[in-house]
Amino acid sequence: MSESTERRHRVVIVGAGFGGLFATKALRRADVDITLINGTAYHLFQPLLYQVATGILSEGEIAPPIREILKRQRNVDVRLGWVTDVDVDAKVLSVEAPGIEYEVGYDTLIVSAGASQSYFGKDEFADHAPGMKSIDDALELRARIFGAFELADLQTDPAEIERWMTFVVVGAGPTGVEMAGQIAELAHRTLPGQYRHIDPRKARIILVDAVDAVLKTFGDRLSTRALRQLHLLGVEVELETMVVGVDATGIEVDTKRGHQRIESMTKMWAAGVAAPALSRRLAEVTGAPTDRAGRIKVEPDCTVPGHPEIFAIGDMMALDDLPGVAQVAIQSGRHAAGQIKRRLAGKQTGQKFSYFDKGSMATISRFSAVASIGKLHLSGFLGWLIWLAVHLLYLVGFKNRVTAVLHWAVSFLGRGRSERVATFQQAYARAAVRAYGDPFERRKEEATAGSKHG
Amino acid sequence: MSESTERRHRVVIVGAGFGGLFATKALRRADVDITLINGTAYHLFQPLLYQVATGILSEGEIAPPIREILKRQRNVDVRLGWVTDVDVDAKVLSVEAPGIEYEVGYDTLIVSAGASQSYFGKDEFADHAPGMKSIDDALELRARIFGAFELADLQTDPAEIERWMTFVVVGAGPTGVEMAGQIAELAHRTLPGQYRHIDPRKARIILVDAVDAVLKTFGDRLSTRALRQLHLLGVEVELETMVVGVDATGIEVDTKRGHQRIESMTKMWAAGVAAPALSRRLAEVTGAPTDRAGRIKVEPDCTVPGHPEIFAIGDMMALDDLPGVAQVAIQSGRHAAGQIKRRLAGKQTGQKFSYFDKGSMATISRFSAVASIGKLHLSGFLGWLIWLAVHLLYLVGFKNRVTAVLHWAVSFLGRGRSERVATFQQAYARAAVRAYGDPFERRKEEATAGSKHG
Repeated sequence: MSESTERRHRVVIVGAGFGGLFATKALRRADVDITLINGTAYHLFQPLLYQVATGILSEGEIAPPIREILKRQRNVDVRLGWVTDVDVDAKVLSVEAPGIEYEVGYDTLIVSAGASQSYFGKDEFADHAPGMKSIDDALELRARIFGAFELADLQTDPAEIERWMTFVVVGAGPTGVEMAGQIAELAHRTLPGQYRHIDPRKARIILVDAVDAVLKTFGDRLSTRALRQLHLLGVEVELETMVVGVDATGIEVDTKRGHQRIESMTKMWAAGVAAPALSRRLAEVTGAPTDRAGRIKVEPDCTVPGHPEIFAIGDMMALDDLPGVAQVAIQSGRHAAGQIKRRLAGKQTGQKFSYFDKGSMATISRFSAVASIGKLHLSGFLGWLIWLAVHLLYLVGFKNRVTAVLHWAVSFLGRGRSERVATFQQAYARAAVRAYGDPFERRKEEATAGSKHG
Repeated sequence: MSESTERRHRVVIVGAGFGGLFATKALRRADVDITLINGTAYHLFQPLLYQVATGILSEGEIAPPIREILKRQRNVDVRLGWVTDVDVDAKVLSVEAPGIEYEVGYDTLIVSAGASQSYFGKDEFADHAPGMKSIDDALELRARIFGAFELADLQTDPAEIERWMTFVVVGAGPTGVEMAGQIAELAHRTLPGQYRHIDPRKARIILVDAVDAVLKTFGDRLSTRALRQLHLLGVEVELETMVVGVDATGIEVDTKRGHQRIESMTKMWAAGVAAPALSRRLAEVTGAPTDRAGRIKVEPDCTVPGHPEIFAIGDMMALDDLPGVAQVAIQSGRHAAGQIKRRLAGKQTGQKFSYFDKGSMATISRFSAVASIGKLHLSGFLGWLIWLAVHLLYLVGFKNRVTAVLHWAVSFLGRGRSERVATFQQAYARAAVRAYGDPFERRKEEATAGSKHG
């Protein structure tokens, strides 16, 4: 283990999302030592987060352990941690994990740390309108959504009931459309008959966006179909509407008709992304330019300008206006891996990354999705079948596929939702806690401490 | 809806655990209005909590929504809330939920609010050794257990590695034995080969109890078998050992050989129960006597002395030294329901509750369990088959059964654990956070806020 000149080429990959994971896998037969650093122990299948939030899937089904996925790949060392700094001269990363700070040296670095939610400078909105980027987000939204119906059922004041039964989704891209559709299905198919004091079918689901069409990137035809489908589900779609305020009990919007306040306890944010702090830091130390979202403007081969040994891929790169979708991350990850293999083989590198658009899709309700694949535009049941096939193909791991299919059968063929658990830590109904304080936490402490009562 | 004399008899049931749920179901054809009040929206199948903690099952599989279970029972109103007071003269309960306080009047009251963890007066232990009573507990333990291996893999100091790879389970009853067995299986079957710097098989799992036998209530023969099985799994069993201190990095014990400190980041508590605050409050207002754990010493018919209209059942009652197990709760719940039906039918009430002991069982590892059923003492594979059959029978809901069987197949026949997700809110590795502070939370805030870096 001495620092001989014969040591293998060290590839460090930051982030085990689609980009980092597929780059790692593409290097499985390469003569390299890979270190894969991630802030959690699992890979996250982000496109299905909305199904965790609405009680269809368990978090384990969309978040298999990285070690489990890669257990047969001998050339990778999986490390838990958060990259806090990068020294591009010494080629060393500083990493932090609970209780320990450590350094990792690299010969080639691939940064694929994804994106975080952007509130367009209004970060105070985050408390009241969680994003949809992590398992924590999804479970908190699950707690808030199901908690809202529970608490509506307890209210007697009609205004209060309406406030609890109004759900606002900000952002009419795929995530927002899918969330709105699933909440509508919950309200109309799963929950009716389960409450004595409210009718869940009377829930209002409002989808808000500043643009003038839902699923705008899917093109006019699918956008129109999606809008019609949302209307059929009872979702109110408010386009060309700017969100100007979010607080515990409502949301303020500017529409074409003027300013308006929507009373709502349950808001969620699916409206924008920002590059992670690592992206800004990398730009700072390399002098690389970034776009408005903080993504690094990479060279055509996905490397950071002036640093052919550093690749920025997926949501962290700004290149050719490519969208922030899984396929871009996967393909740019494979591209980076391919470049590394060429370099090791003594071949010329610097090949341009060319993205092959496999299309995009979004489910709107059960059995109905829109899919845009090249010139093919599909909607309805056919679109949904394609959605199902593609998601099964990419869901990592046999076990996850089997139980996910079962849970889908339960929720698509039946009416049930198997995963409706909210924890206290996820705040049973965080909206109420924000607005009124948390009686449960107090009671729980009392119960544990065995202190006074009543 | 006027307060006419013809209104139906109001039964209020506090707690939707085994006692409350089975009492509710037993009244499904009774001419009563039932209000079922619970602090969460789900029923919890507590005997399988250890499987959620060790990554076998998802929380949804052992915690079906109460409304879903009872959706066909028309005479019950399910209400979220925490009972904060009881007025036995006015026959009114005060209830609190996030954002609302409300009152519920009763003609007959069944209290079945279960038990909380007891640290025998040392509540400060709770921070460092979570109990095993709720979904929150199980998910926090899951985060700590899997997090411990992740963090051990990052350490270079042998003492630190050992501290992370030492797991202490306090309490050698069924829950403690099952936890210790499952952690051993994790270390020996699931995780080997997945780490580059540690060998998970070197993990120490220490089971500690003040008594002189594991599973003491199961009798000598099964106790001895269980002990042998635990030894085969590599679990160190320390009996006649008192826990006198628990802190972030270890545990202090008094053994026959004297005082000892065990360095361990991951401790869990399965050692004692205490009645909930409601039990003490009820004793206070009725003058009913309680036992040391705070349970109400009920009349032979499970009613509170002097209050034939109030039943205290399951873990909240002290009667004939009955153990705090699901069957006692279920049968006392059915007994209370039966008494209510007799009263409504004008029949004599006050029948003595007689418990039919269906036996007890505990799994130690896959394919191996001990089961004590009347005079029948089974262990090994046969005991395990009985365990499987009984748990399938009592797992509520078809969907949960199907996916639970699948997850069991994965973990018993294979080596995998499908549900290994830890959230940030559950503290990725709470032990480290307690000991060293939480770098992740800070990073997460930075990432969201887009503030400075490095």
